[in-house]
Amino acid sequence: MLSLSRFAARGLALRSSRALHAASQPLNSVTEQDLAHFAKILPPSSILSTLPPSSVASEELHLYNSDWMGKYRGTSTTVLKPKTTEQVSEIVKWCNERRIGIVPQGGNTGLVGGSVPVGDEVILSLANMSKVRSFDSVSGILVADAGCILQSLTDYIAPHNHIMPIDLGAKGSCQIGGNVATNAGGLRLLRYGSLHGTVLGLEVVLPDGTILDQLTTLRKDNTGYDLKQLFIGAEGTLGIITGVSILTPPAPQASNNVILALPSFKNVLPLYEIVKRQLSEILSAFEYIDRTSYDLAVKHGQGRALSEEDVEGAECFVLVETSGGKREHDEEKLNNLLEFLLEADEPLINTGVLSQNPAQFSSLWALREGVTEAVSKEGKPYKYDISVPLSSFQDVVDGTREHLKSKGLYGDHAVKYVVGYGHVGDGNLHLNVVANSYTPEIQAALEPYVYEVVASHRGSISAEHGVGAMKTHALKYSKSDVSIAWMKKIKQIFDPRGIMNPGKVLPE
Amino acid sequence: MLSLSRFAARGLALRSSRALHAASQPLNSVTEQDLAHFAKILPPSSILSTLPPSSVASEELHLYNSDWMGKYRGTSTTVLKPKTTEQVSEIVKWCNERRIGIVPQGGNTGLVGGSVPVGDEVILSLANMSKVRSFDSVSGILVADAGCILQSLTDYIAPHNHIMPIDLGAKGSCQIGGNVATNAGGLRLLRYGSLHGTVLGLEVVLPDGTILDQLTTLRKDNTGYDLKQLFIGAEGTLGIITGVSILTPPAPQASNNVILALPSFKNVLPLYEIVKRQLSEILSAFEYIDRTSYDLAVKHGQGRALSEEDVEGAECFVLVETSGGKREHDEEKLNNLLEFLLEADEPLINTGVLSQNPAQFSSLWALREGVTEAVSKEGKPYKYDISVPLSSFQDVVDGTREHLKSKGLYGDHAVKYVVGYGHVGDGNLHLNVVANSYTPEIQAALEPYVYEVVASHRGSISAEHGVGAMKTHALKYSKSDVSIAWMKKIKQIFDPRGIMNPGKVLPE
Repeated sequence: MLSLSRFAARGLALRSSRALHAASQPLNSVTEQDLAHFAKILPPSSILSTLPPSSVASEELHLYNSDWMGKYRGTSTTVLKPKTTEQVSEIVKWCNERRIGIVPQGGNTGLVGGSVPVGDEVILSLANMSKVRSFDSVSGILVADAGCILQSLTDYIAPHNHIMPIDLGAKGSCQIGGNVATNAGGLRLLRYGSLHGTVLGLEVVLPDGTILDQLTTLRKDNTGYDLKQLFIGAEGTLGIITGVSILTPPAPQASNNVILALPSFKNVLPLYEIVKRQLSEILSAFEYIDRTSYDLAVKHGQGRALSEEDVEGAECFVLVETSGGKREHDEEKLNNLLEFLLEADEPLINTGVLSQNPAQFSSLWALREGVTEAVSKEGKPYKYDISVPLSSFQDVVDGTREHLKSKGLYGDHAVKYVVGYGHVGDGNLHLNVVANSYTPEIQAALEPYVYEVVASHRGSISAEHGVGAMKTHALKYSKSDVSIAWMKKIKQIFDPRGIMNPGKVLPE
Repeated sequence: MLSLSRFAARGLALRSSRALHAASQPLNSVTEQDLAHFAKILPPSSILSTLPPSSVASEELHLYNSDWMGKYRGTSTTVLKPKTTEQVSEIVKWCNERRIGIVPQGGNTGLVGGSVPVGDEVILSLANMSKVRSFDSVSGILVADAGCILQSLTDYIAPHNHIMPIDLGAKGSCQIGGNVATNAGGLRLLRYGSLHGTVLGLEVVLPDGTILDQLTTLRKDNTGYDLKQLFIGAEGTLGIITGVSILTPPAPQASNNVILALPSFKNVLPLYEIVKRQLSEILSAFEYIDRTSYDLAVKHGQGRALSEEDVEGAECFVLVETSGGKREHDEEKLNNLLEFLLEADEPLINTGVLSQNPAQFSSLWALREGVTEAVSKEGKPYKYDISVPLSSFQDVVDGTREHLKSKGLYGDHAVKYVVGYGHVGDGNLHLNVVANSYTPEIQAALEPYVYEVVASHRGSISAEHGVGAMKTHALKYSKSDVSIAWMKKIKQIFDPRGIMNPGKVLPE
């Protein structure tokens, strides 16, 4: 206990003299004394450190120090894996006193470097906090530790005929706490809305170690400011989410899908209006793929959903999915829709193919989801995850291609393809620029060009991937100076010493 | 301009000397000089004041100084009705410098005194800000001035086959800005979720007059903290909402409803599970009425939906509504549900009546909605709008009745009825205690008793009505000390001089 008091006292002294400028001071590294303190909070099996007495090889920390794409790399010496909220609180309290940076880490599946240290911060892994706290099968309200893996939660509630309101490609390893911290979007957003609506409560350890318990299971609660909302999408910079209460919808009894070939992009929006009206509450996805994306997906192994003849003259494609309570009803609605579309005087679509069985259902989705893989196989992709008005999707793609042409960067020697695909229903376009190799010229031609185009549409430079370490400099293209200034004030009151996920979200 | 500079200078001096304790200083009253300044911002028709030169009779301000129930009364001398966000900004800037309190006022339809002055604050009415700024019929995204009346917006988008995601009894006079500021719940929450999910952007004038423009029309935007969420449900204490961007769903093509009589409350939850599973995405309301509520509604003029025989032995009733894309499908699902329920070995319901036409549809709803009126006709109601776990609805009602009995306050001489009804789907119970007259004894028996019961269930003392001036002292029953302390910090950074809707939401 001696060392504890000594450090605490030093921490306090530090704080009083540096309080005003704390955030601009460099953070402290973890020392052996810190490790000795962590050993009072956690068992040895929950501490992984290159420092004595743990003294593991630095390779053992590689998975924690890097993101899965190998794009971001930190130099943390220490990974802590608490099992309880109280342990998280004690660790955070200590790090705050000592001014040691902390990176909260969930499944580490992000795309923008948000869960990897920028320096030698402590990595606080939530992996050991993986218990379901409660599930009410009547209300569908689930309360779980932040470290629960999304797929595990899906499996947990499936026997009770409920599904999670979010679904992601990374569901096998991403954690619910990370989903909430990054306000993950995913495939079900069109149907079930954003986490700002479905998350009912949070338990958060604040940067001073205080536990903010707002883990209620109420659908309605109008008693003061809804503080938990601040932590949804804050990417762990305001505190560490340790528990989540979330509303899960009843599982649909049936899912169907259909792929439609369109002669022109300008038909997409009128088509979306008709589909929304006719399918109404059973519409669960409306995904857009331009012709180049389709061709690349087919080229790189996805089956042809449509015949050569069907594809002839198609400028783009739309994948429509329905999820509903009764298969026959849903099929009837889909068939009626197809008839209506094909028998129109001036049809918006050339043709459409309705999946007839689960295998076909999956293969239509594989076509849409295969675009990402195809693009990576074809070359080096520059990927932009943006929100722009639906009506501008094609303009943004074509404009980017023209811009690259004007710079002499379009063709076999540089950029081979500019493709667009994504979630029309959410206004979320994946703009991919496929180059032979990553070069400074292409990079300079694309940025800030793409961000400026997004800003001119009052769009978002990050629809669902977040800001992380990657886009802090570009925040200004989507948020006003006033907004950014207020974000900094919020950060300052929650984390005056700047220890919580430093270098993420906000620009310097 | 002379007086402007003089006042501004004085304001600044005030601020620097009192900055730390500003919020605890009394606010200043509006003077003739202030009015002279407001006259530079607004035309005479937009200023209503008992002070010269406007000099209207104080009765003309009565509607603004009082709530519609006549329960709350302020003494404001001045109502300002700006037409633009810039005018709001200039007014607020002035009031902040001068430390004059401001009450933002929408339709003034609240139930907790949130939109009425506690003293002589300026009333800033949004009534003249009533323009639709844009509507995109493809995405369903509506952008409107805060002063637009909910019903007007409903009418505006109806020809485009969209509906507002919220619906309230007060829709003919409540304003969208007030709906958002109070995080209004209403009848469509079960289906379309809360405003935290459907509001996509806000324009807010902050207490220092700065315009925070987050009025985007994006469904997905993960670029930094979602600041707008703080203003949803802050009841105008952090700033004045001047514009709202909101996602409107496609209009359902058909609506049906059915009333079910249940032998016992314990059947409600199993019934809810079955109804959710079978009706799935078309379920749009699941409303609970206990037997006493039903009898009172019938007694006070609502038609009998069920025959004498049907009602025999029923302990409570449930109203189920569906809204879907195809009438035949919805009817088939409802009929199947009824068959399933009635043919079960141990039926959960005694009987059920399905509405056969729009008139019957309305009369079933009238029965549910008529409870409020019936209760008022029967006596003096103490009304509690609480969230508790679904399974506790009846316990809370019965417990309250027993508690009153134990105090000798139940019977013809004091409390005649304790009834429960509400939105089972939302976990929102309306607990009404119907007395002969309002007395201090009954009041003392009910409070804090009811709040303590709510707290023991980790419930909400205000599910949808908000805190306003009425429940600031009771906030602690639903929010922890840590939460309240953080709310106060948030208030302090946004409104350090304490001018924005003083006396509301937060306890002293």
